[in-house]
Amino acid sequence: MYAVIMAGGSGTRFWPYSRNARPKQLLKIIGKKSMLQMTVDRLLKLKFINDLFIVTRQDLAPLIQAEIKGVKPGNIIVEPSGKNTAPCIGLAALYIAALKEDAVMSVFPADHLIIGHRKFARAISTANHLAKKNNTLVTIGITPTYPATGYGYIQYESESEEDHFEAYRVRTFAEKPHLSVAKRFLQSGDFLWNSGIFIWKVSSLFKELKAHMPELYEHLMTIGERIRENRSFTDVWEEIYPVSIDYGLMEKVKRDVYVIKATFEWSDLGSWNAVYDRAPKKKGGNVVKGEGVVLDGENNFVQSNGRFTAVMGLDNIVVVNTEDATLVIPRDRVEEVRVLVDWLKRENRQELL
Amino acid sequence: MYAVIMAGGSGTRFWPYSRNARPKQLLKIIGKKSMLQMTVDRLLKLKFINDLFIVTRQDLAPLIQAEIKGVKPGNIIVEPSGKNTAPCIGLAALYIAALKEDAVMSVFPADHLIIGHRKFARAISTANHLAKKNNTLVTIGITPTYPATGYGYIQYESESEEDHFEAYRVRTFAEKPHLSVAKRFLQSGDFLWNSGIFIWKVSSLFKELKAHMPELYEHLMTIGERIRENRSFTDVWEEIYPVSIDYGLMEKVKRDVYVIKATFEWSDLGSWNAVYDRAPKKKGGNVVKGEGVVLDGENNFVQSNGRFTAVMGLDNIVVVNTEDATLVIPRDRVEEVRVLVDWLKRENRQELL
Repeated sequence: MYAVIMAGGSGTRFWPYSRNARPKQLLKIIGKKSMLQMTVDRLLKLKFINDLFIVTRQDLAPLIQAEIKGVKPGNIIVEPSGKNTAPCIGLAALYIAALKEDAVMSVFPADHLIIGHRKFARAISTANHLAKKNNTLVTIGITPTYPATGYGYIQYESESEEDHFEAYRVRTFAEKPHLSVAKRFLQSGDFLWNSGIFIWKVSSLFKELKAHMPELYEHLMTIGERIRENRSFTDVWEEIYPVSIDYGLMEKVKRDVYVIKATFEWSDLGSWNAVYDRAPKKKGGNVVKGEGVVLDGENNFVQSNGRFTAVMGLDNIVVVNTEDATLVIPRDRVEEVRVLVDWLKRENRQELL
Repeated sequence: MYAVIMAGGSGTRFWPYSRNARPKQLLKIIGKKSMLQMTVDRLLKLKFINDLFIVTRQDLAPLIQAEIKGVKPGNIIVEPSGKNTAPCIGLAALYIAALKEDAVMSVFPADHLIIGHRKFARAISTANHLAKKNNTLVTIGITPTYPATGYGYIQYESESEEDHFEAYRVRTFAEKPHLSVAKRFLQSGDFLWNSGIFIWKVSSLFKELKAHMPELYEHLMTIGERIRENRSFTDVWEEIYPVSIDYGLMEKVKRDVYVIKATFEWSDLGSWNAVYDRAPKKKGGNVVKGEGVVLDGENNFVQSNGRFTAVMGLDNIVVVNTEDATLVIPRDRVEEVRVLVDWLKRENRQELL
């Protein structure tokens, strides 16, 4: 099996800590290592992985090469521009196919938290077997714990596979739902969160792309030729229409996809609030990372890098202090940091993005 | 008339903008000049003032000499330590008496805002006449606009003086009252706020000090000798018990004190909220000084020096961002910044004080 980490994201939800030049995957959001390094370390521990690739943006490649241990410089694949996950995965598949035509590839987001390594290893191993045996697409699903509206959902058949009790056939994929729908999904018990982890043989992937995304498939074939000839493929890449692998492929293949129900602990750490939830609390439910203090306030999250932050008489707020910018926002509105980042874009405040 | 500006205060209420090494009077709290420079400028405009003294702390003297225009270096009087206002005023009186024994001296806080120069000039001029004619102590009172609990009050007789319709005899001085008492004061109509501005002949002051604060008087006489002999008076100064001029003297003299009812606009700018109140508002009642933005929030005050501050989804908060510290606090609790400063002292965070 070859592993691919998708590390091209911009991670605006952690502004001002995350910036365009240093997105979430390169930040120490939790613990002492960057999210990407934790993902690399997790995969390097899997004995059945032959090699590891990282797909990322041109501008991030030097940073990743300098900071991430355990990945060969030649295994950092550069996307000429962000085209969402389907082209990104297709590009990585070309590099893996060049090494071994019917290799299994596994695809991982760079910035998710996974706790419980043995359970994780077992899930990926099961997926590996299924992908080989059935020449099928396999995904990892997370048992939902609340009616999240920020994730895609996977509905699965009630009976698991004979040899793999954690594996189920997929019935349907559902995009990020409204709260009422999310509540129904949660109650029904037959929906999982889409983790963004995929496992398949590159030959299976190309077969399905040819059937369901013929245009992307053609572009990828051209790019494959260019790579073999050691020529630039930027012009071809720029013609590609950006689309996610979920929307572009998985939803169309559906019933021939398997989902492995994860037993490991998972979080996409999608916002400051998710970081707050996982952090050890001080008195009053406050979290203070770095230099700071909360006086007469409860359930606040303070992250202060390089200066002292004092919060007094306030509850349930997030304060993030960095070298050149400070954010103050209620905990229940951290998802809206994007609105602020959009404002900065409109105001052309490049130095703050 | 000789003017004295008391500029020794520490101004913790503006932390983190104000620091021990740069207290409120040296900050540009409002407008483009420091509070002290504005006070100096205001007094230099009064034609009947012969000369101007500043009393301050040892450590602030070089800063004041470097930054404040219009004051002779020799007119910066250094207190060996802070002893509250009575000793401070007594010390300045010694310097003035050495120049002219029956000179009128006027005393001003360094960090108050006064708008309406002609009205201010008339009040001080009236006080000057009264102090000369009656050999009495004169103070300036401010007509209260709300039941403030942070100021001392002056109760005055209902009939004004014959020749000076703005001048009244004082009936009593009242220290900072509780809210219910402050409300009664406001309703009664015969109370004024104590502005901390005093006018008297130095000979009158020493006469009253001798009668009501004999111990301080004796210490001052000894200090006067030391000054004449050009010797250090620190040892004598350190024996002085700290006490305010209001509590130590004015309350005791009472009925022989006159108060001039000010017609000028006055604010002691005692907190961030007072600064907010006076500042021009943006949409939604927000004030943003320096670099920052408020999105979806109302009536917030943001002061951001040297970095960008973003506030989103919050109302009625104060965010003050400086080079090395950030404060986040509700607007109606800014008076409690002192609690935070006390916490920093207990934690021995000298670098933040």
